[in-house]
Amino acid sequence: MAKYAIGIDIGGTNTKFGIVDQQGIIIKQNRLLTNEPEGVEDFIDELYIKLKPMIDEAGGLKNFAGIGIGAPNGNYYTGNIEYAANLKWRGIIPFAKMVSEKFGLQVKLTNDANAAAMGEMMYGCARGMKHFITITLGTGVGSGIVIDGKIVLGHDGFAGELGHTIIRPGGRMHKGTGIRGTLESYASATGVRETALELLAENPDVESQLRDYSINDLTSQSVYECAIKGDKIANDIFEFTGQILGEALANFVMFSSPEAIVLFGGLTKAGDLIMNPTRKAMEDNLIQIFKNKIKLLYSDLKEADAAILGASALVRE
Amino acid sequence: MAKYAIGIDIGGTNTKFGIVDQQGIIIKQNRLLTNEPEGVEDFIDELYIKLKPMIDEAGGLKNFAGIGIGAPNGNYYTGNIEYAANLKWRGIIPFAKMVSEKFGLQVKLTNDANAAAMGEMMYGCARGMKHFITITLGTGVGSGIVIDGKIVLGHDGFAGELGHTIIRPGGRMHKGTGIRGTLESYASATGVRETALELLAENPDVESQLRDYSINDLTSQSVYECAIKGDKIANDIFEFTGQILGEALANFVMFSSPEAIVLFGGLTKAGDLIMNPTRKAMEDNLIQIFKNKIKLLYSDLKEADAAILGASALVRE
Repeated sequence: MAKYAIGIDIGGTNTKFGIVDQQGIIIKQNRLLTNEPEGVEDFIDELYIKLKPMIDEAGGLKNFAGIGIGAPNGNYYTGNIEYAANLKWRGIIPFAKMVSEKFGLQVKLTNDANAAAMGEMMYGCARGMKHFITITLGTGVGSGIVIDGKIVLGHDGFAGELGHTIIRPGGRMHKGTGIRGTLESYASATGVRETALELLAENPDVESQLRDYSINDLTSQSVYECAIKGDKIANDIFEFTGQILGEALANFVMFSSPEAIVLFGGLTKAGDLIMNPTRKAMEDNLIQIFKNKIKLLYSDLKEADAAILGASALVRE
Repeated sequence: MAKYAIGIDIGGTNTKFGIVDQQGIIIKQNRLLTNEPEGVEDFIDELYIKLKPMIDEAGGLKNFAGIGIGAPNGNYYTGNIEYAANLKWRGIIPFAKMVSEKFGLQVKLTNDANAAAMGEMMYGCARGMKHFITITLGTGVGSGIVIDGKIVLGHDGFAGELGHTIIRPGGRMHKGTGIRGTLESYASATGVRETALELLAENPDVESQLRDYSINDLTSQSVYECAIKGDKIANDIFEFTGQILGEALANFVMFSSPEAIVLFGGLTKAGDLIMNPTRKAMEDNLIQIFKNKIKLLYSDLKEADAAILGASALVRE
C-alpha cells in the first residue's frame, strides 16, 4: 500500500487539504479560500502550487495512492461537481478529471458529507459500524448514510440529502431551494438564528439577553451563550430546534435502522441543551421496535479532519 | 438449481402460499386464514397439511430449494416474527426455525413488504433496477427499500418502516403506534376513509354522493366510485391524500435517490386520481438534482403474487 493519500475538503468558504498516512494521521495540512481564485482552473492551479511542495517533501508522487476529494454536490460516479449552490463555479464541472490531469494521480470525488461519513467510519466514532448516519449541523444540514458498510449513493450518486427532507410542511421557505419546511431551515445555524428572531418578536414581554445583541450580530453562538446563563427564550430556541431535529431523526431511523446517528458541526457545541430535546423527540416518535436502541453520538474528530480523512480514504478502498 | 421453491406470504387476514418454479411461475397456490388456527403451532400444522400434498405432487422434498416467508415484523437476521401487531401470536416467535423443523427444508424469513420488493426486483417492474423503493398502499402503508440490488435491512433487520415516518407533525394519532402525523394515518385505505369523514363533516353545505353511504359502509372504494363520477369532495380526498403521499415520497427520494418508486395495494386502483396529485407534490418538493428523473410506477404483479414470488426468491439467492 502506498504510504500516503491526499484528502481535500472543498467548502463554501475554505478548502482544506492534507497528506494522510496509512494510520489515518494527517501529517501535513493547509487551506485556501475556495472562491478567491477567479475560475475553477485558477483554483486548481492554486491548489497545485500549495500541494506540490508538500508532495515533494513526502517523497514525490510514487509514495501517493491518489487524491480523494469531498465537495458540495460532488458525484462519486461521474467525478463531477454539479450545480453546487455555494460555489461560484457554474454548471457541471469535471473536477476529478481536471485535478487528475494536473497532478498526475488518480482522483476520486464524492460529496463533502459523504466524505465526512467515510472519515467517521474509518477513523472516528463509527469505527466498526456497518449501519450509521452522519448529520452535520452547520450553516446548513449535511448528511452521509452508511448501509452495510458502504456510503449510500443512490442510482445517480446524489443520495443522502437529508437536510432537504420536509419536517414542517408549509413551514419556512428555504432560500436556496424554494421548498417549505425542510430540516435545514430549522436545525442549522441559520435556522437557529431565524427561530431566535421569531421567538423574540412573538414574545415582546419576555425578558431576554438576546435583545442586547444587534440583529446583525445575533447568531446560534449568541443563543448558546445566553442559554447556558439560563435565558428562557434562548433555551426555548434549543427546545424548539431539538423537537424538530428529533422528529426528523426518527424518520431517518425508520428508513435505514442505523446502529447510531453521529452528529457534528457548530450546533452540536450546544451539547445537552440541544441534545436532550432532540433525543426525547426522536424516542417519542419511534415505533416500539426501534425505541431505546439507536445511539446518538457526537463526532470525536475535528470537523475539518473528518472530511480530509474521509476524502483520503476514497483512494484507500 | 432445485426445480422449485415455496413462497409464503403471511398477512393479517390471509396467508397465501405457492410453489414457484425456476422461471418465477407460481405453478400451484392456496391460502388459509391466518388467525383461524388457535396458536402458532396449529397454524404451522395447518400449513403443513395444505402444503404436503402440493410438495409430493411436485416430486417431493428433493426438488425444493427451501421455503421463503414474508411476514409482518419478520426479521431476516433472526428468522423471528417479533411483536407483530396484526397477528394474534404474541412476543417473539422463532418462526423460521419452527417451520424448518416441521417441513425438513431450509427456511428464510423476512418482512412482508421486503418480500414484495424482492418479487418486484426478480419478476416485476423493477427487474434490472438496483435502486428502488416499493410502497404498499393497503389497509396500512408498507415499504421495501432496495439499494445496490439489496433489500435494506438495517443493523437489526427492521429497516424500511416508511409508513411510520412523520409527514404531518402533530396530526392524526395512529391507533397502533400512538404517534401523530405518520404517513400510514393518511395514505392508506384507513386514512382515506378518515379523510372522507373529516371533509364531509367540515363541508356540510357541499353536496356529495358520499353521504349516501352509511358511515360503516364508507370505504376508500366508495371514495373512488364517487370520484370518477365527478364528486367534488371525493376528488378533494384524493388531492389531499396525494399531496401528503407526494411530500413523503420526496423525503424518501432525498434519502436514497432511487431510480423508481413502485406503488401497489388497493389505493393505487384510484389511478390518476391519486397519482397526479402525488406526482405533482413529489416534484414540487424535490431539490433540483432530483427533479423529473424519478419514475413512479405501478406494480404489474398481482399483490399476492409479488409477495409469494419475493418470499420464494429468498431461498434462490
